[in-house]
Amino acid sequence: MASRRVGLWLIGACGSVGSTVALGLASLARKITPPTGMVTSLPVCQSLDLDAPATFVLGGHDIRKADFREGVLGLNERSGVFTARQIEACSLELLAWSGNVRPGTVLETNETIRALVDLPEVQRVRSPREAIERIQADLRAFQSKHKLDQVVVINVASTEPPFELTDEHQRLETLEAALNRVSPVALPPSGLYAYAALDLGLPHINFTPSLGTSCPALDELARLRGAPHGGKDGKTGETLLKTVLAPMFAARNLNVLSWIGHNILGGGDGRVLNDPANKASKVKSKDSSLSSILGYRPQSHVSIEYVESLDDWKTAWDHIHFEGFLGTKMALQFTWQGCDSLLAAPLVIDLARLALLAQRQNEKGLMPHLACFFKSPMGTDEQDFFRQWSAFEAHISAW
Amino acid sequence: MASRRVGLWLIGACGSVGSTVALGLASLARKITPPTGMVTSLPVCQSLDLDAPATFVLGGHDIRKADFREGVLGLNERSGVFTARQIEACSLELLAWSGNVRPGTVLETNETIRALVDLPEVQRVRSPREAIERIQADLRAFQSKHKLDQVVVINVASTEPPFELTDEHQRLETLEAALNRVSPVALPPSGLYAYAALDLGLPHINFTPSLGTSCPALDELARLRGAPHGGKDGKTGETLLKTVLAPMFAARNLNVLSWIGHNILGGGDGRVLNDPANKASKVKSKDSSLSSILGYRPQSHVSIEYVESLDDWKTAWDHIHFEGFLGTKMALQFTWQGCDSLLAAPLVIDLARLALLAQRQNEKGLMPHLACFFKSPMGTDEQDFFRQWSAFEAHISAW
Amino acid sequence: MASRRVGLWLIGACGSVGSTVALGLASLARKITPPTGMVTSLPVCQSLDLDAPATFVLGGHDIRKADFREGVLGLNERSGVFTARQIEACSLELLAWSGNVRPGTVLETNETIRALVDLPEVQRVRSPREAIERIQADLRAFQSKHKLDQVVVINVASTEPPFELTDEHQRLETLEAALNRVSPVALPPSGLYAYAALDLGLPHINFTPSLGTSCPALDELARLRGAPHGGKDGKTGETLLKTVLAPMFAARNLNVLSWIGHNILGGGDGRVLNDPANKASKVKSKDSSLSSILGYRPQSHVSIEYVESLDDWKTAWDHIHFEGFLGTKMALQFTWQGCDSLLAAPLVIDLARLALLAQRQNEKGLMPHLACFFKSPMGTDEQDFFRQWSAFEAHISAW
Amino acid sequence: MASRRVGLWLIGACGSVGSTVALGLASLARKITPPTGMVTSLPVCQSLDLDAPATFVLGGHDIRKADFREGVLGLNERSGVFTARQIEACSLELLAWSGNVRPGTVLETNETIRALVDLPEVQRVRSPREAIERIQADLRAFQSKHKLDQVVVINVASTEPPFELTDEHQRLETLEAALNRVSPVALPPSGLYAYAALDLGLPHINFTPSLGTSCPALDELARLRGAPHGGKDGKTGETLLKTVLAPMFAARNLNVLSWIGHNILGGGDGRVLNDPANKASKVKSKDSSLSSILGYRPQSHVSIEYVESLDDWKTAWDHIHFEGFLGTKMALQFTWQGCDSLLAAPLVIDLARLALLAQRQNEKGLMPHLACFFKSPMGTDEQDFFRQWSAFEAHISAW
Repeated sequence: MASRRVGLWLIGACGSVGSTVALGLASLARKITPPTGMVTSLPVCQSLDLDAPATFVLGGHDIRKADFREGVLGLNERSGVFTARQIEACSLELLAWSGNVRPGTVLETNETIRALVDLPEVQRVRSPREAIERIQADLRAFQSKHKLDQVVVINVASTEPPFELTDEHQRLETLEAALNRVSPVALPPSGLYAYAALDLGLPHINFTPSLGTSCPALDELARLRGAPHGGKDGKTGETLLKTVLAPMFAARNLNVLSWIGHNILGGGDGRVLNDPANKASKVKSKDSSLSSILGYRPQSHVSIEYVESLDDWKTAWDHIHFEGFLGTKMALQFTWQGCDSLLAAPLVIDLARLALLAQRQNEKGLMPHLACFFKSPMGTDEQDFFRQWSAFEAHISAW
Repeated sequence: MASRRVGLWLIGACGSVGSTVALGLASLARKITPPTGMVTSLPVCQSLDLDAPATFVLGGHDIRKADFREGVLGLNERSGVFTARQIEACSLELLAWSGNVRPGTVLETNETIRALVDLPEVQRVRSPREAIERIQADLRAFQSKHKLDQVVVINVASTEPPFELTDEHQRLETLEAALNRVSPVALPPSGLYAYAALDLGLPHINFTPSLGTSCPALDELARLRGAPHGGKDGKTGETLLKTVLAPMFAARNLNVLSWIGHNILGGGDGRVLNDPANKASKVKSKDSSLSSILGYRPQSHVSIEYVESLDDWKTAWDHIHFEGFLGTKMALQFTWQGCDSLLAAPLVIDLARLALLAQRQNEKGLMPHLACFFKSPMGTDEQDFFRQWSAFEAHISAW
Repeated sequence: MASRRVGLWLIGACGSVGSTVALGLASLARKITPPTGMVTSLPVCQSLDLDAPATFVLGGHDIRKADFREGVLGLNERSGVFTARQIEACSLELLAWSGNVRPGTVLETNETIRALVDLPEVQRVRSPREAIERIQADLRAFQSKHKLDQVVVINVASTEPPFELTDEHQRLETLEAALNRVSPVALPPSGLYAYAALDLGLPHINFTPSLGTSCPALDELARLRGAPHGGKDGKTGETLLKTVLAPMFAARNLNVLSWIGHNILGGGDGRVLNDPANKASKVKSKDSSLSSILGYRPQSHVSIEYVESLDDWKTAWDHIHFEGFLGTKMALQFTWQGCDSLLAAPLVIDLARLALLAQRQNEKGLMPHLACFFKSPMGTDEQDFFRQWSAFEAHISAW
Repeated sequence: MASRRVGLWLIGACGSVGSTVALGLASLARKITPPTGMVTSLPVCQSLDLDAPATFVLGGHDIRKADFREGVLGLNERSGVFTARQIEACSLELLAWSGNVRPGTVLETNETIRALVDLPEVQRVRSPREAIERIQADLRAFQSKHKLDQVVVINVASTEPPFELTDEHQRLETLEAALNRVSPVALPPSGLYAYAALDLGLPHINFTPSLGTSCPALDELARLRGAPHGGKDGKTGETLLKTVLAPMFAARNLNVLSWIGHNILGGGDGRVLNDPANKASKVKSKDSSLSSILGYRPQSHVSIEYVESLDDWKTAWDHIHFEGFLGTKMALQFTWQGCDSLLAAPLVIDLARLALLAQRQNEKGLMPHLACFFKSPMGTDEQDFFRQWSAFEAHISAW
């Protein structure tokens, strides 16, 4: 085991989440930070043959001129997270891993995300097939250069606008045909990255609400190539609380009349979500859990507003109005003040470790046992956090 | 089944919780209110042979001159709960059941509770044995007068000050001997009521933080007489949320640094809890769950303050300070605005139904499967609400 | 003075605010409620020759089939306000005053408000002049039938969509000409009611964000006819707090980075504000105060969402992010849970009394001293609540 | 003016507030931070002849082995305030000014504060007169060494337990006699420092709830020696909000039923306030404002709890329950998350500048115009923040 080396390839590598993953992995490897926030460090995972932080090499794609160190320093300056000591201690890794970041591939995306592109070398390709080939070339080069036993690809890029699936996304055969078409492009960027990874047999995790691997054709590809995959949209804050609190209301037979959630945040994520199209993907992902858990549809509302001064500090206010015995109306309100990237990054590392191990356990295709990590879990309809958690415990205890 | 009739005997009958139970049972029997807030109305309990609301007769002990109708009207006036229509529709039952309320027995209790006694006929007895006999006489008369197949006794009285257990409470034999002593009295009032009920083979539920049946000697008595019993301290608000949220922090490996809870409420319960001795029982009951769930002891603080203007509207503010990845401190705050009696009453009815059914299932002694109803569950150390809930589901699915 | 009788004519009479005004005036006259919430009952107003509640007769226009009693009962049922005793005690006045309510005049308004019209007799007129004549006929009949010394008209109707002012609203002469035109109508409904009142020399208060009297031409008319007028948009909740808290940040030189306000409410007002056009008027009115008080423009956001279960209980969450010494970011959050109609009604009565007295003091035209009552005060740019309050005190102390 | 040099002498120099004052003054002098949070930088103070930050020299007394740089670094580490760049840029001043810090004088104080003393050289004196002489020797040495035109003394030390005043504190003559007594000591430490400063004719500000100069005898001394003095207890957070919000409830005639305030904080201040005796001074200072502003005494409660993880980030939750029209109960809640030292430090600098200027304006004795800076203003009963602010504006506009 000692000689195993693994790679973690991030789509949207040098954003806030990616940079935090880099600093985190390096800090863990140097044992200068405890694994707080990491599920795979819990006693329940103790006996698993998970890859140690020190065995990871980091790389990725980004469409902006950026490196991990700049990402880390920017977050430090704007959001007041990380200490100077942490950054200094890990500067070698941040520098080295930045050398593994390749210009992303831009084919077709919307204006808000296109505005982020400031990289002259960004690979402006002309067809989906060309995009996939370039992505795969980068992945192969990464694996061979660092002599990696396995590589896992995780999407932590900004949210894309919703993408409409059609019949051609139902089977691999029709998708393959559609990908030969130049226009309209058969998959959004997140789908092209996903196809490229799965086609190489690499496990793939979609930590965003974008399409990623969430269509039957791509699951077929994953099973064909022996790649486990999962997603989508990491469950880190307000939605986590929703899927924790809603089961309580259900178990007490308290009737939720309305559940209103207001999210305010700044940072790159906030800016992209300020575009109504991109926000639509996110709000949909956040709003679906309630009726699934409660068994009825209370009035609900989820808003996300860009507030520059907050940067990465997502603040959510939820007002839950419910009816108890004899028609009595009562209320629960909460305010969540969490630093989004710091909540996401340890889960990204968890998912990398769990996907790599799943592949070594010869699992392929969907990983529904990872539902507790996601807002819109693939392969299961279960939204109740504690039922998801039980399923996770049951699955890994069988490894 | 149609001819079965059951009795619910409440200790502290005409307080806010007891009065709400009365109005609730009558409203349910008349089908003018849905069973919102009742666990036993959930689909998971659908196939159980539970007693229908219309088969219940209510009675109880109270140390104040009061009846159910006055209790209901007072709560309506002070807290704005119940509608005029509900009260009017159920006035016959409220009146009839008030006829089953007997003066409580006062032997030894503290000044704050003694101040509540305004009943000239209150049974001032001279010894524990005399107290137990009078209580049992009332219970027997209730059962025979109304031809009840079963009677369950539930304590919803005001919180007593903490009571120190000694060796004599470990075995029934030594307790029996101690009860023959006139002074110091071997059991607090809640223990005398509990002894009286169990000794008659009646199921007993302790919905308060007082002693009730929570000593080995009384469990021995319960098993001897074939009485199931459970408690203690109904989990209705802030503590319910604690045992729902703490597992989330645990499952995400987020390090809780401090958990501060401030509760403000008025009403009779608030007034009694304003006495430092009585408050001590409550705070202890509310504070024990955290370290059990988290596996470590964060700084925690629970306060309860009497705020007259709130009456039955308990308002709790909790501030949870936690540490995430790379040492980042974050916060969750919530405000709970619940009407305590309306949250408690449906659970009291649930527990009455579940205890009566348990006895018919030939269960006796502790009922650890009811842990999800209590702040300080007896017979189990499990505090995690969702694990408690799973245990409840598993147990009743075997009936 | 004893023989003086005055009339209060409400536009939108039987809505939540109007109905509460009716119950409130009757309760005050019967001395069964204290004047809590009324500014004119403060010691500072003690020596003013204000009209006593018992001297008021109520009437008004409404476009829905409704009366004061129904309005009161509906609010009681949906929002849990008022006691049965209050309603019963005042039923005679509610009935009598409902006889003074006349069908409103509908000429041109948007779909959302039109949907509220369910009155067959509603006066569907064909021209602005016809609308004004009918309104004036109703006002004259009210005054003469009840032998009223003075009548004040107050608009408490639902919010209209924004109305674009043009050159023709700058002078009375051009407005008079434009009113002769049939289409497009030169004034929205609130402006036609306002014109009708001022033209009769009646004081007018615009408690809504609609146009009302807020154009130079109507002020010219008011001065010509000897009518004092004021508005607009009663300051009852979140905006009141804004204009109280913002001066604190200014006086402490704390730099407000962002001020985000989320309002949720149900009821008729909430439903109308759910229409984006109508909401626009309200949000604009709520958002203008900050930069005026602070002297710079922080990022700000105001949302209003319709949440049916809340009915009249407006709940607002504000998150104020500010920078202190040495660049340190801090936060203040507040939650306001107020019953809108109960906050508005006493101010409506205050404004009726103050406008009637102002007319007796021979004041005419704008009343900038009433700025502390309004979100968008007319005749002054002052938004700071305490400076507005000082101006009010100074003005009335000169009477 | 250019050549004027002034000294600021802090009692409790190297605590959180003192260290922040040091870093702040140095940053302002170097123009690397804007004067956010400073009242004396507002336009209203623009024409005053205030001492520029660059003209200040810092010194003080401390009973712990500490210097300004350590204080700054500790706060940076524990509370995440200040940037590395700010600290580095000002390290010369922090070092130089630390040379002016002298061991404090300990005569008689309580256990909690005594536990903080870790300085071997701390001046353990045997009598009040000896204490005063040593303090005065330090002050004289500071002034002459740095050739200072004026020196102002400000107490920012930890809160003392309440001190009972007697007849001997009413007149200077009797106090002088009492100070000759060795035991019991006639003044607590804050009073001895205050006596020493005033007796030298130095202006004195008491930023804490301790006694300081708040007895008639010391005011007599101040007037005799030409020293202006003021206090007490800087109004920086929850109490500031109370005195801003309570006037709003008063002006709207809304009846405050209860006002409950819970404060949680860590840090040195939090630790000292955890001692019930020391907390008593603070709570009393925080609680007195309400009834003064409202004109009646609602139920109120103020708690302060030590929560280590928060360090300097004081978090306050206030729940204000109030009654509006027709007896309707409503609620306002707020949460204040402020960094105490960063809120206090700019006001300390403000008060230093205002006291020095007052002395140059030949003012002596109490400065009631500074009431807006204090929780327990001396020389006036006014608690309403905006009336205090108007008085401040009026006073300085006359300079």
